[in-house]
Amino acid sequence: MKDKMTIIFFSGTLDKAMATLILATTAASMGMEVSIFFTFWGLNFLKKKRSYKKKVFMQKMLEFMSSKGKNDLPLTNMNMFGLGPWMMKKLMKKKKAASIEELFLLAKQFNVKLFACSTSCSVMGVEKENMIDEVTDIVGAATFLAEAKEAKINLFI
Amino acid sequence: MKDKMTIIFFSGTLDKAMATLILATTAASMGMEVSIFFTFWGLNFLKKKRSYKKKVFMQKMLEFMSSKGKNDLPLTNMNMFGLGPWMMKKLMKKKKAASIEELFLLAKQFNVKLFACSTSCSVMGVEKENMIDEVTDIVGAATFLAEAKEAKINLFI
Amino acid sequence: MKDKMTIIFFSGTLDKAMATLILATTAASMGMEVSIFFTFWGLNFLKKKRSYKKKVFMQKMLEFMSSKGKNDLPLTNMNMFGLGPWMMKKLMKKKKAASIEELFLLAKQFNVKLFACSTSCSVMGVEKENMIDEVTDIVGAATFLAEAKEAKINLFI
Repeated sequence: MKDKMTIIFFSGTLDKAMATLILATTAASMGMEVSIFFTFWGLNFLKKKRSYKKKVFMQKMLEFMSSKGKNDLPLTNMNMFGLGPWMMKKLMKKKKAASIEELFLLAKQFNVKLFACSTSCSVMGVEKENMIDEVTDIVGAATFLAEAKEAKINLFI
Repeated sequence: MKDKMTIIFFSGTLDKAMATLILATTAASMGMEVSIFFTFWGLNFLKKKRSYKKKVFMQKMLEFMSSKGKNDLPLTNMNMFGLGPWMMKKLMKKKKAASIEELFLLAKQFNVKLFACSTSCSVMGVEKENMIDEVTDIVGAATFLAEAKEAKINLFI
Repeated sequence: MKDKMTIIFFSGTLDKAMATLILATTAASMGMEVSIFFTFWGLNFLKKKRSYKKKVFMQKMLEFMSSKGKNDLPLTNMNMFGLGPWMMKKLMKKKKAASIEELFLLAKQFNVKLFACSTSCSVMGVEKENMIDEVTDIVGAATFLAEAKEAKINLFI
């Protein structure tokens, strides 16, 4: 077993993104190797912006209803059509908690690996060029499993 | 530690069922032993069909509002009274992703074990005869914990 | 690796609290060491009652919309403005399943450790005096990671 943590980031919400990034950056600062696998709604985190190119009709509808990227994520509870996340961000700032953007930069500095799930990318029509440059690679479930097998901590968030 | 994975499938949604089955079948295809524990809303996955027999009033109400089985699961987000799951299934078919039914058959071929949680069964009034034949056994939390203790990967989905 | 389990209780819902406490008490009864980390919405579980003291405006709004403590948690699905949890509790009683309160007492008897996440406490304005006496300590992500690294089972619920 290696001093390693893997996280599957499935939900794509602001609160769970906070939990994921706080755990990832703290673990990395303690010298652990960290990999995050973005899948399903979690893919929204990796988007550059909304894009309708090369998408079939239902992918376009899905894209229209999804968040635009890591700075546009909804809350799991009390989303209230965007009022909830706006308040949460204000509150985090007031209480001097690190923002999603700051935690993300920190994660990159600590070499946290960011993988996008290939099956989700295919179903949702997300291509490499639609994703932020920080994405390490687009991989399948087998890559996650190979990493998770030798990691001490594995979480599905 | 064994080359083994356990998953608690709690949520009973289509998207999380996809994640569970893709991870389970990929792990099994890599030679890992896999056990899935269906609990709470996750029990809906194992239903043959809706049944109101031997249920008390509140269990009947719960049954009426729950999905009818693994081919009737809602989405975690954007369910839109059933439009979301219908679209997602269409999209998966178009993009040649395996369906829930195909992944489930594959899981059975790979001897993925399917356990139903006994406490959830009792509270929700689900009996062995209401569940699909593929269920390995109805077990308590202790059985999950004994398996999880020796597994390299444990996920709560 | 120690005979140990850690759970991050993030969601703060009745159904997931049941799963958390059933797993925690069963593991403890099998001789395992168990730590639960309450974070984000999960903090509501640890509240004595609603309190608006020393909170800024947005924390007060958040408090107003949050549950009042472990006996006032919503359901993940079918909450129906409180009807769902009420029915679920009635049903659990009828089926002689242990209540949240009973499971919680059992967890304390088994020395399950209950940690509150310091970042969440700060953002949401929850102070030690607002929380039930059973809370072991208020800690950061590093404490969770140190425990999780040597635990055989780690779950994010």
